Amino acid sequence: MTPSLTVNQQALAAFLATEFPQTRCTLEALDEDGSVVVAHAVSESELRPGGTVSGPVMMALADVALYVAILARIGIVPLAVTTNLSINFLRKPRADRRVVARCRLMKLGKTLAVGEVWIYSEGEEEPVAHATGTYALPRER
Amino acid sequence: MTPSLTVNQQALAAFLATEFPQTRCTLEALDEDGSVVVAHAVSESELRPGGTVSGPVMMALADVALYVAILARIGIVPLAVTTNLSINFLRKPRADRRVVARCRLMKLGKTLAVGEVWIYSEGEEEPVAHATGTYALPRER
Amino acid sequence: MTPSLTVNQQALAAFLATEFPQTRCTLEALDEDGSVVVAHAVSESELRPGGTVSGPVMMALADVALYVAILARIGIVPLAVTTNLSINFLRKPRADRRVVARCRLMKLGKTLAVGEVWIYSEGEEEPVAHATGTYALPRER
Amino acid sequence: MTPSLTVNQQALAAFLATEFPQTRCTLEALDEDGSVVVAHAVSESELRPGGTVSGPVMMALADVALYVAILARIGIVPLAVTTNLSINFLRKPRADRRVVARCRLMKLGKTLAVGEVWIYSEGEEEPVAHATGTYALPRER
Repeated sequence: MTPSLTVNQQALAAFLATEFPQTRCTLEALDEDGSVVVAHAVSESELRPGGTVSGPVMMALADVALYVAILARIGIVPLAVTTNLSINFLRKPRADRRVVARCRLMKLGKTLAVGEVWIYSEGEEEPVAHATGTYALPRER
Repeated sequence: MTPSLTVNQQALAAFLATEFPQTRCTLEALDEDGSVVVAHAVSESELRPGGTVSGPVMMALADVALYVAILARIGIVPLAVTTNLSINFLRKPRADRRVVARCRLMKLGKTLAVGEVWIYSEGEEEPVAHATGTYALPRER
Repeated sequence: MTPSLTVNQQALAAFLATEFPQTRCTLEALDEDGSVVVAHAVSESELRPGGTVSGPVMMALADVALYVAILARIGIVPLAVTTNLSINFLRKPRADRRVVARCRLMKLGKTLAVGEVWIYSEGEEEPVAHATGTYALPRER
Repeated sequence: MTPSLTVNQQALAAFLATEFPQTRCTLEALDEDGSVVVAHAVSESELRPGGTVSGPVMMALADVALYVAILARIGIVPLAVTTNLSINFLRKPRADRRVVARCRLMKLGKTLAVGEVWIYSEGEEEPVAHATGTYALPRER
């Protein structure tokens, strides 16, 4: 894919802060190859017994990362909806680090966008989760 | 499957309230066929623009429903971990209703449990989402 | 969903035989609630060591079952394409039985159809696999 | 992951030819980073109307690629079984090319291995499908 970003990082970061205040996600990077990096600081209430980050926190992060990667390409259109998300949990995330998600689109079609997301504990090399997801896109955009 | 419940509803409801205070999920039913019903009252901050419930709220609910359905069968063992969750979003949930999840296990093996979850807006007939998930079970239990 | 079948069983069976000769699938039932039953006689070459049916045989059966369930509702339109298929393998299928798939649509939208498929060894009560899949539908139909 | 291959390419290619004669898959590469490349020459009967490769052909290829990537790491143990496979179809494969799958393991645990597979029409840059899958591993190995 020859990605052409239609949105700059600042506009996207502002949108994210306004639209998803509850996720406390921040946009960390918007690369030229079309991939985005999103991070989330884990709160006490998001930890599971045993000191690990709860699964739904990572699912929410994957969902936001996909959304942001799509908006970076199609422009800020707040109507795209998730149709499918599939996640594999690979390793226990660290309780004392942010979780960081890198998303890249595999396909950006007329009606569907499909992307993959790798999630890491910040600073670690091995991924803690991997997700793929599909968004339905608005026809007129 | 011939389910044999090893946990009663009251003990499970108490565990859920203690272990997952942040989900605000309540156990609504624990049926003899092994299926469980879990509900979640949607808060203002969980709504998306357009007045719908955010996807991650439903993913979290599916994850809890699976967990509860497993504990109902193997006993309250706080070590089972999700390895995989796949969700299809089918319809827009209503903003003014609780979301309700019914989970039934498809398989309860020695090391893996697999279940499916149907999610509804309370009182509606058509499902808003469908998930399948796998949990890895502790070997000694 | 209030299914309204637009295709009769005979027409669909004929289409299946012509379009997918290599699957050797037969249409067994087309129920009023919109669910379809498809069967496949396992050949020697489709067995795996240990006397079980290979996974791809069940994936192919799930894919055909979904396709047939969609055609039963939208009419015989040979242009629908699979966008996503997710399958959980639950138990070892019997080598000496046909594999039988029952598919029901969860959603039939304008551009997407989503269905679930339960697969059994014929005559057995416990499912051997469960799949969910999404098809993209042609806009003009 | 620091992959350490325990099997050489020749032994694996021989195993594949013997064990899966019906897939007509060949092992093309076994890289030091633990990824494997498997190819499949599409036959006439595997084409769909419109001149594209059928979905189940790609699912079968993904399944074999995962299996081979696992065997390359744990040794030739013909007992690993697929527990889950999820595939996204991205683009129409070319009818006149082999389909080629590259698989890399994301996790190799004691009881589960998880991998991802990218599928291409040979010589093309854009992937036609992406799959993730989980295999249950034998405990004693």
